[in-house]
Amino acid sequence: MHKVNVGVLGATGAVGQTFLHILEERSFPVGELRLLASPRSEGKTMPFRGEQIPVHALAENSFENLDFVLCCANDNLSRELAPVAARAGAVVVDKTNAWRMVPEVPLVVPEVNPEDARLHDGIIAGPNCSTTELVVALAPIHRVNPITRIIVDSYQAVSGTGAAAIQELRDQTHAWANDEEITSSVYPHQIMMNVLPEIGSFNSNGYCSEEMKLVNETRKIMHAPDIAISATTVRVPVEVGHSEAVHVELTRPMSADEVRDLLSYAPGVCVVDDPARSMYPLPLTAAGRDEVFVGRIRTDISHPQGIAMWIVSDNLRKGAALNAVQVAELLIADGLL
Amino acid sequence: MHKVNVGVLGATGAVGQTFLHILEERSFPVGELRLLASPRSEGKTMPFRGEQIPVHALAENSFENLDFVLCCANDNLSRELAPVAARAGAVVVDKTNAWRMVPEVPLVVPEVNPEDARLHDGIIAGPNCSTTELVVALAPIHRVNPITRIIVDSYQAVSGTGAAAIQELRDQTHAWANDEEITSSVYPHQIMMNVLPEIGSFNSNGYCSEEMKLVNETRKIMHAPDIAISATTVRVPVEVGHSEAVHVELTRPMSADEVRDLLSYAPGVCVVDDPARSMYPLPLTAAGRDEVFVGRIRTDISHPQGIAMWIVSDNLRKGAALNAVQVAELLIADGLL
Repeated sequence: MHKVNVGVLGATGAVGQTFLHILEERSFPVGELRLLASPRSEGKTMPFRGEQIPVHALAENSFENLDFVLCCANDNLSRELAPVAARAGAVVVDKTNAWRMVPEVPLVVPEVNPEDARLHDGIIAGPNCSTTELVVALAPIHRVNPITRIIVDSYQAVSGTGAAAIQELRDQTHAWANDEEITSSVYPHQIMMNVLPEIGSFNSNGYCSEEMKLVNETRKIMHAPDIAISATTVRVPVEVGHSEAVHVELTRPMSADEVRDLLSYAPGVCVVDDPARSMYPLPLTAAGRDEVFVGRIRTDISHPQGIAMWIVSDNLRKGAALNAVQVAELLIADGLL
Repeated sequence: MHKVNVGVLGATGAVGQTFLHILEERSFPVGELRLLASPRSEGKTMPFRGEQIPVHALAENSFENLDFVLCCANDNLSRELAPVAARAGAVVVDKTNAWRMVPEVPLVVPEVNPEDARLHDGIIAGPNCSTTELVVALAPIHRVNPITRIIVDSYQAVSGTGAAAIQELRDQTHAWANDEEITSSVYPHQIMMNVLPEIGSFNSNGYCSEEMKLVNETRKIMHAPDIAISATTVRVPVEVGHSEAVHVELTRPMSADEVRDLLSYAPGVCVVDDPARSMYPLPLTAAGRDEVFVGRIRTDISHPQGIAMWIVSDNLRKGAALNAVQVAELLIADGLL
């Protein structure tokens, strides 16, 4: 079988670690695996298929002979290095915010717009974690009954911020349990026993960058520049799993049962919807799973063409690393990798 | 000064305890204070103004010579006993769900519809905690620019369930910190490090009772039966303080600055809205405070007459006990108590 030489830029972060797990799980045909990170990670190793793989600091020839590079470093590094890796011959799937809204760069969720991946010129962007689960759940509806407006309010896990934020929540929880002082450094306020309506930086329109990502990325992926979208994105004291309360307006009325039936057969979606038995998606049960879970599907009683629902997915997997692996698998299937 | 003989039915619960604190803080003119609860609380005492007040089990003459009774027991007990207390001559402010939607019973938030309190026939209902903060923040807008639609997704503290739920979150947090097994009995799933999109029981329309309370109570209090309202209510691992992401549609366009100015002078509202400096309402800072905090006020970019905002309030105080005390104060000011 054709082997793929894989590089990971930002290998030691939360997404990089999850990416390696998923390559293992899915028996991805890895040839060489090259882990790249900042100089302070030089000398570290990371486990992969029973071996300890060394982490290398970035150098001039870091991208030579790589077929596929996952970039999950920061935006600035990605802006600088994704083109370098692409020029060296690799297809880069970028998980940062650097390339998503660049018109020439496809923004791809394989369940939604796989055809866009073929148009790449070396760089394919993956959407933000909160967008990915939203479009996986909404695109099947939009295809048969175009969505005109989306309101989404999120309940996002700290792992979306990164490994340091997971540690901060854990540290604060231990401090609380031991009656010690609780300190914050990753977030501007205590996250434990609290919720924070701020993710990213604030725009002049009063929306934060996470909210505008949901707006702009959803439109681009669904090829629907005219959908009206609003969001309030909120960090909650959960380790893994982003939840979203979603209210959509459709072109025609549609029953909850129709939506439920449609989503039951949609790729990447798992409907969990028996609320009378307390069965609905939960971050705690979605963590570690690949699916986008959808439940609480009901007619939105505030709008004649409205549907309300509750969407949960593992933000590190489908929200980031899994989506990147699926893009690579798509390219292999198309003979492009 | 005229003294008021006060009874508390359900005195030992989370709301009852907060009610006593607030009577102390506001120097409410308490004559006799009679604490009533189920037989299993007989013999307990509760502190009030430096004394230990005994808790009595309910008896036939429990309501004799009382002027004002706060009922924060369960719905069934309230249905049975609120009329008994009213017939015995007390004005009952009921915090349960038993009387809120009975047409003859006024449902009162003093900042919003104080005039309705005068129409009582012995029983005045207080709204559910998630409704109270919503109407305090929205009524000032509705008065000058009628609201046509509200979408609200909530982030509700466990204290809304009661004292046992606070204990469950604390126990689960200690168990997590000590690497012990986490068990749940109050909630159907672990609440610590999780969020649960279920509050109350589910209706046949797929909405849970907490969601329908927001719909029906908001319409009744604001005398606006035609407002379209939808909600997703979610329990989060926070002890005290309900947060709400709110998207409203108005009759005419209105700028965020206009809304901010209006709310800055609205009774019971405190605007905290400087997101660039991470200043916005938070449950952790709203806990123990009387105000309804509003921030993240912005034009809702998904609707030409839309406004989005973030509302937080202490669910035990303004959401329950404080509102009841304010109703009593209103009746005193009107010479009705």
